[in-house]
Amino acid sequence: MGRVTARRQVRRVVLGEPTVTTVDTLAAEEPLEIRVGGTPLAITMRTPGHDFELAAGFLASEGVVSEPGHYASATYCTSGPQRYNIVDVSLGEGVPPPDPSLARAFYTTSSCGLCGKASIDAVRTRSRHPVADDPVTLEAALLATFPDRLREGQEVFDKTGGLHAAGLFDAVTGELLVLREDVGRHNAVDKVVGWALMNDRLPARGTVLMVSGRASFELVQKAVMAGIPVLAAVSAPSSLAAELAEESGLTLIGFLRGSSMVVYAGHQRLS
Amino acid sequence: MGRVTARRQVRRVVLGEPTVTTVDTLAAEEPLEIRVGGTPLAITMRTPGHDFELAAGFLASEGVVSEPGHYASATYCTSGPQRYNIVDVSLGEGVPPPDPSLARAFYTTSSCGLCGKASIDAVRTRSRHPVADDPVTLEAALLATFPDRLREGQEVFDKTGGLHAAGLFDAVTGELLVLREDVGRHNAVDKVVGWALMNDRLPARGTVLMVSGRASFELVQKAVMAGIPVLAAVSAPSSLAAELAEESGLTLIGFLRGSSMVVYAGHQRLS
Repeated sequence: MGRVTARRQVRRVVLGEPTVTTVDTLAAEEPLEIRVGGTPLAITMRTPGHDFELAAGFLASEGVVSEPGHYASATYCTSGPQRYNIVDVSLGEGVPPPDPSLARAFYTTSSCGLCGKASIDAVRTRSRHPVADDPVTLEAALLATFPDRLREGQEVFDKTGGLHAAGLFDAVTGELLVLREDVGRHNAVDKVVGWALMNDRLPARGTVLMVSGRASFELVQKAVMAGIPVLAAVSAPSSLAAELAEESGLTLIGFLRGSSMVVYAGHQRLS
Repeated sequence: MGRVTARRQVRRVVLGEPTVTTVDTLAAEEPLEIRVGGTPLAITMRTPGHDFELAAGFLASEGVVSEPGHYASATYCTSGPQRYNIVDVSLGEGVPPPDPSLARAFYTTSSCGLCGKASIDAVRTRSRHPVADDPVTLEAALLATFPDRLREGQEVFDKTGGLHAAGLFDAVTGELLVLREDVGRHNAVDKVVGWALMNDRLPARGTVLMVSGRASFELVQKAVMAGIPVLAAVSAPSSLAAELAEESGLTLIGFLRGSSMVVYAGHQRLS
């Protein structure tokens, strides 16, 4: 399997000081092709590691699988020099294979051409796990501890400064259930969702998905598809992320830093 | 055209203080479909604005166009309620239309299955603008001024805290030629490259592309395809970004902050 980090000779320049040649540790990035039953479905540039989770989470985010029985097994293609960069997923018996135009289908519907509203409707139509009825309540003081705990768990970031993180917390006890890192935010979230699927925790009711960066439409989509009722981000959400959260009944929190946060949707869950 | 920002009622929570209901400004995010000669090619979630540049830059990054004559015109599809979220590009006379499997072709070649090396080779094969022979030299003290100037130019970030930025600087005079913002880093860079194409500045020799976040393989690819000899990032590069930079003869600078920086490839350009 590919390595999570790579070492490289670099020059460190500080104005007014001599340039130093040293060795730096970088976050690894390699392409991963996800296949279903042998048919290529998607390619993503990711940090190697937890690739089966990534593939499972990607399929859950896209609505292809929504419970553990839908996902039968996964294997690496190991022939040739592709170094474990192809994962082939076998779906459970009777699970229909994904539509080849899967990615497009999320953004377009026949009723509305291509717009944010159509994107929202597509997610709402596909999700098997409603989050609006999740009665979980949140303690603001507990939430405020999540960013530091996410940061503390980021082993690879410490070495490279170059990885996004996603963590799934129990909303009530505050336990960190799983943390994944990746050069791509969407991959880090897919790995977390894939972990939940493979550990029979979908829908992930009563949890908080915490991400190290911003909250885009895509990340809210992934939370909704996994039945996660709360998404918290260190940085800002986009307009469409907030709209999808509102329409889906998901609690969306941004700028979660120190003792403060901004609640963009679903504030009724905050006590 | 869609709006660059959107306003939304939010709750601002500070531990130990009463919750305040206020209005926040969010970065807008909407899908954009890029078509070529009426055929859908790609969909990206982007911040509306500079959409023709985004489409042109995307096509340049993918090797479909490499000089102004290749790009004849672009129009919005305005029928229906899709609110200017579809751009149709007409290519110049004799320019071959893109391969429908275009995105895949960047990551795979028949010789190597799917791996980073194949991704690098694909970019090197497709680029029409070699950067290795660009004799431009860089003053570290001038480079160190770019992050603040990029940040100062970010009008929408000031309001939303939620946008990536990409700026193209003249490497010698330090002039900021163009700055674009977007919820997606790759979109911000495509808008800059599209601006360069439409203003007859490709290959963009003698320039520095400065980005607000990290430097991934994809961003180095876009710089190489546009003939930009230097990519500078506020944060960390990935392993494959550094490898592609090295192989292409591009200077890659990371952690450009305050008076210091780390040079990952092409240090000979730094004086």
